[in-house]
Amino acid sequence: MISVVILGAGNVATHLFHAFYKAENVFVNQWFNRNLKSIDFYKNMVNVTSDLSSLKPADVYIIAVSDDAISKLSSQLPFENQLVVHTSGSVGLYDLDKKNRRGVFYPLQTFSKETSINFKNVPICIETADKKDFKSLKLLAEAIESASFKVNSDQRSSLHLAAVFVNNFTNQLYRIAHEITESTGTEFDILKPLILETANKIQNLSPYSAQTGPAKRNDKKTIKKHLKKLENSPHKAIYEILTASIQKTHGRKKL
Amino acid sequence: MISVVILGAGNVATHLFHAFYKAENVFVNQWFNRNLKSIDFYKNMVNVTSDLSSLKPADVYIIAVSDDAISKLSSQLPFENQLVVHTSGSVGLYDLDKKNRRGVFYPLQTFSKETSINFKNVPICIETADKKDFKSLKLLAEAIESASFKVNSDQRSSLHLAAVFVNNFTNQLYRIAHEITESTGTEFDILKPLILETANKIQNLSPYSAQTGPAKRNDKKTIKKHLKKLENSPHKAIYEILTASIQKTHGRKKL
Repeated sequence: MISVVILGAGNVATHLFHAFYKAENVFVNQWFNRNLKSIDFYKNMVNVTSDLSSLKPADVYIIAVSDDAISKLSSQLPFENQLVVHTSGSVGLYDLDKKNRRGVFYPLQTFSKETSINFKNVPICIETADKKDFKSLKLLAEAIESASFKVNSDQRSSLHLAAVFVNNFTNQLYRIAHEITESTGTEFDILKPLILETANKIQNLSPYSAQTGPAKRNDKKTIKKHLKKLENSPHKAIYEILTASIQKTHGRKKL
Repeated sequence: MISVVILGAGNVATHLFHAFYKAENVFVNQWFNRNLKSIDFYKNMVNVTSDLSSLKPADVYIIAVSDDAISKLSSQLPFENQLVVHTSGSVGLYDLDKKNRRGVFYPLQTFSKETSINFKNVPICIETADKKDFKSLKLLAEAIESASFKVNSDQRSSLHLAAVFVNNFTNQLYRIAHEITESTGTEFDILKPLILETANKIQNLSPYSAQTGPAKRNDKKTIKKHLKKLENSPHKAIYEILTASIQKTHGRKKL
């Protein structure tokens, strides 16, 4: 049985709480948040507190607060030599106060209030200063059925950057498609199977092999038609830069 | 029973052949291709020909050749007043020769040789010059269990453009993520669950509501870190333009 204390009440903290609460081999000994109101709803499931000085013992303290608040909160903890981890993709291991044993437990997934998540689909990137702490965090990931990966700070920041491309930027391309279809009164829904298939395809093919379309086959006529359709649109520059990127990847000449 | 003749032997033609061949209510009366070798493999399943003058009768002739070849092939057909459709997203209805009844049967999906496809996940965009032909094409879509949509040429070209954003461009973002992770010796596979969840999320949420991340919340510190990581990279400009696009969508100030 691994005991944890969660600090913070955002999306990651809340999804982690649910996963740990359900897990057989994890006990959430306490949930801390500055503002007790955010976690008051859970007080019958777990001990809640807004008082750092009354933090309970735990095998792992999980700081799941905004990036900017991690370092300060870690230095305010009223104990030392405990395993304290944060859950951020872009904050370094050594931004945690050195009075405790430091680690990172970064769930690489998109979390939102509206959507529940199965932690089987959440890879956990683990980094620790001390080897034996790695084992504890690996067990914690296993307890919620997540795959875990040993990832150092440089690798983690690459993953975080790459995640912005495949998640935030991809979602913005969906948004642009939504605008384009709406402009002619067409249903965005017609694109949804294509969106799913595009994501499914690269589960087994590399993105390089999966590429198709006018940019890859250097179909100038279609590209020209598209650019004409995008005249006066803020999306034209995005079309051009991504077309050029595909052509560079696949050894085509520029537009 | 609807009888069809397929003309062409590319990905769309081949996937359509398989779908029609399996369908109870469709009979593929013939498969034409200029180069018989490409379809010779199928000669025990269907009558194959490379000779336009020996085309057999059919309720629907489906021209699934490259965009540039559609118009010419339609004018070479040795009959008139038959239902002749093409399968292209970007070619107009009236690019087909007017001696026949014209239509479009555009499957909005990504097709590749390596990946089989279930036509349940392929919306068909239908356009016809004549109303009664619309009904025939709708039945043909139903026979392969595809949802069908009435889509005019302007709407279809918007969908085709939008498809480039959600398919080709999204896939290129996956490719960039692949490059970024590889540069630090990290496994691209760690990103795959996130890629799937990003696509799944907008099946029920609008892309607008689904957006998260540093650009949306105007997290300048993280954006700065990412731009620093991308210094001297061709992907920096893509990061900047898509970050600005998200901020414009969500009413944030520019970088």
